[in-house]
Amino acid sequence: MAQNSNAKNVAEKLIASHLISGTMRPGEDIALKIDQTLTQDATGTAVMLELEAMGLTRVKTELSAQYVDHNLVQQDNKNPDDHVFLRSAAKRWGIWFSRPGNGVSHPVHQEHFGIPGKTLVGSDSHTPAAGALGMLALGAGGLEVALAMVGEPLNIRMPKIWGVKLSGSLPDWVSAKDVILEMLRRHDVDGGRGRIIEYYGPGLANLSVMDRHVIANMGTELGATTTVFPSDERVRDFLRRQGREDDWVELVADPGATYDVHEEIDLSVLEPLCALPSSPGNVVPVREVAGRPIYQAYVGSSANPGWRDFAIVAEIMRGKQASNGVSLDINPASRQVLENLTQGGHLLSLIQAGARLHQAGCNGCIGMGQAPAKDQISLRTVPRNFPSRSGTKDDLVYLVSPETAAASALRGEICDPRDLGMDYPKIVEPDEIIISKDIFIAPLPPEKAKMVALVKGPNIHSLPEFDPLPDQLTAPVALKMGDGVSTDEILRAGAEVLPFRSNIPAISRFTFDVLDPEYYNRALHYRDEDPQASGHSVVAGDNYGQGSSREHAAIAPRFLGLRFALAKSYARIHWQNLANFGVLPLEFIDHADYAAIHQGDTLRINNLHAQLQKGSTIEVENTSKGRVFQTRHTLSERQVEAILAGGLIPLMKERLAGK
Amino acid sequence: MAQNSNAKNVAEKLIASHLISGTMRPGEDIALKIDQTLTQDATGTAVMLELEAMGLTRVKTELSAQYVDHNLVQQDNKNPDDHVFLRSAAKRWGIWFSRPGNGVSHPVHQEHFGIPGKTLVGSDSHTPAAGALGMLALGAGGLEVALAMVGEPLNIRMPKIWGVKLSGSLPDWVSAKDVILEMLRRHDVDGGRGRIIEYYGPGLANLSVMDRHVIANMGTELGATTTVFPSDERVRDFLRRQGREDDWVELVADPGATYDVHEEIDLSVLEPLCALPSSPGNVVPVREVAGRPIYQAYVGSSANPGWRDFAIVAEIMRGKQASNGVSLDINPASRQVLENLTQGGHLLSLIQAGARLHQAGCNGCIGMGQAPAKDQISLRTVPRNFPSRSGTKDDLVYLVSPETAAASALRGEICDPRDLGMDYPKIVEPDEIIISKDIFIAPLPPEKAKMVALVKGPNIHSLPEFDPLPDQLTAPVALKMGDGVSTDEILRAGAEVLPFRSNIPAISRFTFDVLDPEYYNRALHYRDEDPQASGHSVVAGDNYGQGSSREHAAIAPRFLGLRFALAKSYARIHWQNLANFGVLPLEFIDHADYAAIHQGDTLRINNLHAQLQKGSTIEVENTSKGRVFQTRHTLSERQVEAILAGGLIPLMKERLAGK
Repeated sequence: MAQNSNAKNVAEKLIASHLISGTMRPGEDIALKIDQTLTQDATGTAVMLELEAMGLTRVKTELSAQYVDHNLVQQDNKNPDDHVFLRSAAKRWGIWFSRPGNGVSHPVHQEHFGIPGKTLVGSDSHTPAAGALGMLALGAGGLEVALAMVGEPLNIRMPKIWGVKLSGSLPDWVSAKDVILEMLRRHDVDGGRGRIIEYYGPGLANLSVMDRHVIANMGTELGATTTVFPSDERVRDFLRRQGREDDWVELVADPGATYDVHEEIDLSVLEPLCALPSSPGNVVPVREVAGRPIYQAYVGSSANPGWRDFAIVAEIMRGKQASNGVSLDINPASRQVLENLTQGGHLLSLIQAGARLHQAGCNGCIGMGQAPAKDQISLRTVPRNFPSRSGTKDDLVYLVSPETAAASALRGEICDPRDLGMDYPKIVEPDEIIISKDIFIAPLPPEKAKMVALVKGPNIHSLPEFDPLPDQLTAPVALKMGDGVSTDEILRAGAEVLPFRSNIPAISRFTFDVLDPEYYNRALHYRDEDPQASGHSVVAGDNYGQGSSREHAAIAPRFLGLRFALAKSYARIHWQNLANFGVLPLEFIDHADYAAIHQGDTLRINNLHAQLQKGSTIEVENTSKGRVFQTRHTLSERQVEAILAGGLIPLMKERLAGK
Repeated sequence: MAQNSNAKNVAEKLIASHLISGTMRPGEDIALKIDQTLTQDATGTAVMLELEAMGLTRVKTELSAQYVDHNLVQQDNKNPDDHVFLRSAAKRWGIWFSRPGNGVSHPVHQEHFGIPGKTLVGSDSHTPAAGALGMLALGAGGLEVALAMVGEPLNIRMPKIWGVKLSGSLPDWVSAKDVILEMLRRHDVDGGRGRIIEYYGPGLANLSVMDRHVIANMGTELGATTTVFPSDERVRDFLRRQGREDDWVELVADPGATYDVHEEIDLSVLEPLCALPSSPGNVVPVREVAGRPIYQAYVGSSANPGWRDFAIVAEIMRGKQASNGVSLDINPASRQVLENLTQGGHLLSLIQAGARLHQAGCNGCIGMGQAPAKDQISLRTVPRNFPSRSGTKDDLVYLVSPETAAASALRGEICDPRDLGMDYPKIVEPDEIIISKDIFIAPLPPEKAKMVALVKGPNIHSLPEFDPLPDQLTAPVALKMGDGVSTDEILRAGAEVLPFRSNIPAISRFTFDVLDPEYYNRALHYRDEDPQASGHSVVAGDNYGQGSSREHAAIAPRFLGLRFALAKSYARIHWQNLANFGVLPLEFIDHADYAAIHQGDTLRINNLHAQLQKGSTIEVENTSKGRVFQTRHTLSERQVEAILAGGLIPLMKERLAGK
């Protein structure tokens, strides 16, 4: 990083202007002021329950917005109950509410709220799309977003800045999706880990804000912390069309700014690419796989959300029909895009071409309908094709550009759009577009907001209250596990479990059931019936809690009485989630101590408060074996404080109450 | 009936011109030549499996069409596998195939294939909608439709003809939906049983073909065999717009024609009506319930499918917004309607008013998404509001006109549209409309068709084989029900259940679970474990099996061991489905016998074969109560023959094998 120069790149400017603590050296802990938040419905209900538990009166951000875009298929009352709950919570706490059908959070936020130079944290991994506007936008777990909403800074580790210089302009039939697919072809799904990707160079002038959105959105697929673009004339143009030119500020790299890592892409030599099943990193040229018959061509999602991405498909297909049996699924990304496609006649072309037109939202991209048939290829403009994400087990999902999707729909087989034998349609977005400003329910004034009651359907339960950490713990080992236990084993996902995300008592029934269906009853016994026990402990091997970041994998066992975990090592996010919810994550110092513990043994810790305040070593007694051994923790002072309070939520509750 | 006169009404002309056997006296068995069939996907997979079992080479009707409109939510491969299977079956047997997204079978069939004077049988209870064109259109179980496709006549009991004379014209803010709601207000859900409703009189001139479609569609909710309208200049006009004027023939009642039952409606005195939860027969004026807050306003379905039904909503809402939180769900009924709404700017008005725009199809009307939140009112233009049909248990669904739905969406509460304080928008369908003729996959020529292989996904299972009827039955009563139990309660629809329509063992798990989740286990116990029992029986009150025509409501309990039902009375289609699949549908002669039976009682029938061959009285012994009582059946000889064989499929198998 150019920390010895005054010349700053865009990412450094964004960080420096929001730095609350820490040093901007890669790997150092830094804390950032957060200006805006976004939440969506699948993660937002938990965030709202956390805010409720903290006793929030009103959000402290400049702007927070709650979207309903994920759980739009309403098979019974659970999803609509969540929507109604979120609407009431938004009114209660001064949050903008986007009703179902308004579209995907990322493009809608960009249209209405995104402002260059601001920070945004969202409980959705594609939040970095807002980097297209020159924002610093990060995805995070629900509690991190809740903390930002109550005015806390976001703590991250300073990433390296990866400068990607763009030159040239895209050839006909090649579009922004092919740029990010090229990045994935070069660097696979972990090439961006610990990095912010910053695009710069003369090629930028040829990419609209929505093109940049495509690229920033899928920076997540590279594992990047986030992606940023400068705020230049293209951004100004975008905001002007949105009637928000006043929100524009210029934000470009200083002359002479440097980057920690270097990359160049000549846009003019790119070709249509696709990611084969079942990873966004399996990228090959479309021509290599041309001719394979397809079941589905799917256009939409946060990865190709722009008006252009649909209009180009409409123009390619105008006056023609999707081949024979192809399911042509059109998922408008936002109400605004849908309105403008309708106004301009593009929607009619798509319908006449055989489209199945769906409400604006995430839809099939997150497996909410639109699953493909068995053993049949689905071409999608979405960001991800992990196995079974579509809903169909062993699915065959290819990630492509809108151009490739359209060409293949016409042919009924995978087709490089350059082989269609037609001129590339030149589409130009009209200068005057329809902007519907009144699609949100705006925050109420504080005096009205505080009168709003939360509307909780029968499946929505307040978060249980968690007590402070006792000074002495007597915790039988309710489960002893091996190495590499993932959060999918701690608390699985899937259609049986997910509907209970707003109901901790109900979802806790599934805790560890993949590993041991009896864990639940043992945990309840130790929590409620055993007069000797103050809850329970679990013992694990290496890399405990790897995989998905879901915070319910910490909340649910905590609800069942988990007071501490004892593992050889932890995966970072689960370790953080445990601490956030008041579970002490201890590590073995001597692995022989792991071997000496058996399930059902009682572990005791005395003088715990003093031990935590004194240092990082904690003495544990295995009273069943008459054995005492040393463990350690790697918690920060802030985390120790949270654990002593019973977790971050009780801590924040105290703080917000002015204690 | 006017059997002694030469003057015929429309229904008599339709029947007389297709009569293969029997006498046109109410109550007599008659057999009708069937010209056309329609199947939809939820019932069609079973039909196709039945055709396969019969060894069909090519359909023998003038026209058969397969629609995909029900199971459009694709959570995994099951529904799309069905779509692919149906496409292959349609190609194989010379059937027109309508791809997903083309819309609901009834309006699409009417647009493209309906011909005055023809007969149509469809595996969907709303098939009578085609009566709007002057067709004789009947809903039937899948097996009846399969038989029609292989060239067998349709056997029904000659209904009474119920003449409804219309005079005057509808006031502002009152539309066709209010006409059929008025019929339901007067006659409830069984008032049409055993009758064909024939509308006539000077008021007809004021009702378009699509208005008539609304009325004919919901004749099903009156329990009518079907509904017919004359084929007059309005029909000619409809066909001319569709580019099919050549298909028009005049079909009107002869001067002096009479009716078996008489009714009159003065259209000019009607007012906006609604059906309260949870029956289409609970009709009251909208003003009586005005002011109740609503969650949802839902426009679409086969009950209000016309361009007008959406355009009027668009005009009422133009430039305004659905109130605060109302979920305004717009479900276009056909691709053609969607295209013309888009072309004319109405779609844009709806989207700008806050609509959630869904693909053309049945959608929430059959519980495929769009369920309302708990304890919240949903206003719907759909034909039915049976309990839980929406997907939400104890739902609060009101049936209304498009005008009432729009007014209430604007207000956020139930609102008589006359109280909106605006002029009634006068909408006129353009003379030139968009007609997309190429939305179907046309039948292949026979030599190509026979090369097509059926594509069966892993969830598509052959029908189970059913054994012949034993001579003695010992059947415990696994369930005792009250009056009006619908097929939605016998085997619900909805996104959780519908995907198993091609898999009887899997779908049977849901049998009666709305009424009693333990029925399934009890039925299995009686079938597989109780050495005394030869399966089980069920006991019901009046109008048993009303509502949807789904034959799975007979197949699934039959698979679980149901040998006979005992009810005060039956809805026609379910009664026929029971017989078709080998379940004996018995009726109480003395309703006191109904009262004397309790769930868990064991019913025994001895010498059943002889009793069935001897007459219509069947003696039943309640061995638990030591009580013997008489019941009756109203089966034809043909039906008795089928039941003895174990159902029509074993019978047809025997026949085709030359036995």
